[in-house]
Amino acid sequence: MRIDGLQYANWSEKIFRQMREGGVDAVHVTIAYHETFRETVLNFERWNRWFEQYPDLIMKGLTSADIDHARDTGRTAIFFGFQNPSPIEDDIGLVEILHTLGARFMQLTYNNQSLLATGCYEEYDAGLTRMGREVVAEMNRVGLVVDMSHSGDRSTIEAAEHSTRPIAITHANPHDWHPALRNKRAQVIRAVTERGGMLGFSLYPHHLKDGSDCTLESFCEMIARMAGDFGAEHLGIGSDLCQDQPDSVVEWMRSGRWTKGVDYGEGSAAAPGFPLMPAWFCDNRDFGRLETGLRATGLSDDDVAGIMGGNWYRFFAENFGPEVRPGT
Amino acid sequence: MRIDGLQYANWSEKIFRQMREGGVDAVHVTIAYHETFRETVLNFERWNRWFEQYPDLIMKGLTSADIDHARDTGRTAIFFGFQNPSPIEDDIGLVEILHTLGARFMQLTYNNQSLLATGCYEEYDAGLTRMGREVVAEMNRVGLVVDMSHSGDRSTIEAAEHSTRPIAITHANPHDWHPALRNKRAQVIRAVTERGGMLGFSLYPHHLKDGSDCTLESFCEMIARMAGDFGAEHLGIGSDLCQDQPDSVVEWMRSGRWTKGVDYGEGSAAAPGFPLMPAWFCDNRDFGRLETGLRATGLSDDDVAGIMGGNWYRFFAENFGPEVRPGT
Repeated sequence: MRIDGLQYANWSEKIFRQMREGGVDAVHVTIAYHETFRETVLNFERWNRWFEQYPDLIMKGLTSADIDHARDTGRTAIFFGFQNPSPIEDDIGLVEILHTLGARFMQLTYNNQSLLATGCYEEYDAGLTRMGREVVAEMNRVGLVVDMSHSGDRSTIEAAEHSTRPIAITHANPHDWHPALRNKRAQVIRAVTERGGMLGFSLYPHHLKDGSDCTLESFCEMIARMAGDFGAEHLGIGSDLCQDQPDSVVEWMRSGRWTKGVDYGEGSAAAPGFPLMPAWFCDNRDFGRLETGLRATGLSDDDVAGIMGGNWYRFFAENFGPEVRPGT
Repeated sequence: MRIDGLQYANWSEKIFRQMREGGVDAVHVTIAYHETFRETVLNFERWNRWFEQYPDLIMKGLTSADIDHARDTGRTAIFFGFQNPSPIEDDIGLVEILHTLGARFMQLTYNNQSLLATGCYEEYDAGLTRMGREVVAEMNRVGLVVDMSHSGDRSTIEAAEHSTRPIAITHANPHDWHPALRNKRAQVIRAVTERGGMLGFSLYPHHLKDGSDCTLESFCEMIARMAGDFGAEHLGIGSDLCQDQPDSVVEWMRSGRWTKGVDYGEGSAAAPGFPLMPAWFCDNRDFGRLETGLRATGLSDDDVAGIMGGNWYRFFAENFGPEVRPGT
C-alpha cells in the first residue's frame, strides 16, 4: 500500500495516470493556501468535476475504507486538506461544514500568524490562540486532523498537547538533518509522535539536505534514523510534490494576498521559483524507488510497508471520523 | 410511519419534543427562501448545533435508511430543502456541494422568476430557462429533488417532462378545491404524478378551502378524491407548518431583498401576518388527528399509511442518491 501524505500538483489526466503507474492508493491533496470559504468551495467543485471526468482513475476519499475500495477498483483515493485555516474564516461552524464536504486535514497556520496559531516564519510564536483552542476541540470532535507542518515550534507543541486526538506534520523533515525553518526539531517531533501523531517526510528540495542534489541514500538513511528515534509506526511520506505548477503558484503560496510585496519564502530573489526535484523523485511513478531505497537501509519489511502507506492508512482509519468519547 | 413533506418552524426544543409526541419520524425542513450560498451554509451550521444539542430528539437525514435509524432510536430525522434556488447562486457546481451538505429538495423558483424557471406570481411563465435545464439535469445526477411548489404551471410541467427522475410538489393543494394562486391545476398534478412524482398536501390556511375555518372533513375528503384521481401512492402531507414564527419571517419569505416595497403574497394589507392555523392542526402533535380524519373517508389502511408517510419514504429511498443510468 502506498499513500502520500501531501501533494499539490497542477492536476491533469497525466498525473492521475502516473499515480496509477506508481501504485499510489491514496493522496492527501491541498485545496487551500489562502482561499476564503467560498474560494475553497470552488476548489471542491473543481475536484467534483475531475471525479466525474476520470472515474476510472480517481475517487473521493472520506474514510480509510475508501482506500480499500480504491485499491479494489484500481484507482487512487483523493483526500482533501488545507495548508491554512483561511477556509474557516472566523466561523467555527465551518469546521463541520468543511469536514462534511470532505476536508480531512487542516493546518492551523501557513507561514504567518493565523487566527489560530503562529506560523514558522513569524519572529515570536505565542502558541495557540483563544480561537485556536476552540477550533482544535471542534476539529477533534468531527475528525478534521490538525496539521502543523508550517507552524512554529511552540504552537505545534501546544497543539499536540491541547488536542485530544493525534495530530500530524504531514510534510517536513528533521531540523538536525537539514536546518530549514520548515524542518522540525526533535522536541517538536517528539511532542507529536509520542501522542500517536504522524510525521510525513517531504521531498520538496528546500526541505532536503543538499537541496535538489540530495541523494536517495541520504534521504532514506535519515528516515531509518528517525524510525529508531521515534518509532517507524509514526512515520510516512508527505512528498509535497508540486508537479507541473507554474511559478505563479509558488508566488501565491508564499504571498497570498497578505503582502503587496514579494515574499520569497524558502526561495530567494535569485531563485524565486519552484526548485528542481531530486532526480530520483520527480513524480508519482517514483514511489517504487523510494521503497527500494528504504529497504536498502536495513529497515524491516514491516517498517518499510508502514512508512510507504500502512501507517497513514491506520492514522486515517482512526482520525477521520467523529470522536468517540470515553463512556459514550 | 409519519413523514411531513415540508415545515418551516421557528425551531426549538419544544417543537422537537412535539414532533416526538406526534410520532413524526421525518420532516423536510426549509433552510432557504432568499439566502445566498453563504447564508444557507450558516443555516446548515445552525442545524449542526441543534443536532449536537438535542441528540436524543433529532438527527440529520440524508437517506431513507436514516428514517429507519431515527425510528429505531426514537428520534425525528431532519431532511433539508430550499424554497428557492438562491443558494446555488449562478454556479451549477453548488448543486453537488449543497447535496453533499445535506440538501435533498430544491424549488426551482419561489414566487418570482428565478435563474431557472418562473414563479407562480409572475404574469407570464416562460418555462425552464437554459440554466434551468442544466440544473435539473445536475440535480437528477446527484439526487437533489426538483420541487415546484411555488412555480408556474408551464414551468412545473416542463420540469416534470425534462427531469429524468420524479419531481415533487411538496406543499400545495388542488386548485379546483381552493383556487389560490399557489394551488395546482389538474394537468399540473397529472404531469408530476404520472411520472412517479409526489404531491404533499398543505395545511397552510391560505391554501385551504375556507382558510383557517377549513374543516378536517373537507381537507380529508379532498385528499380521498385526489387519491381516486391520481393514485394514493403519489400523495403525502407537506404541512407547511410555520409554527412560532414572528410575522417578520413571513415578510422575509414574501419580500426577501427583491423589493423595497411590501409584497403581501397570499396575505393582504388588512391581514399581512401569518394566518391562524385550523384548530385541528396547530402543531406536530396533531398528525394523529389527520390520520383519523383520513380513515374516516373510507380510504384503505394501506392508502392512509402511504399518505401519512409511506409514500414519502419510498420517494426518499428512490430519489436522494446518485442517478443510476441504464446500463451502468
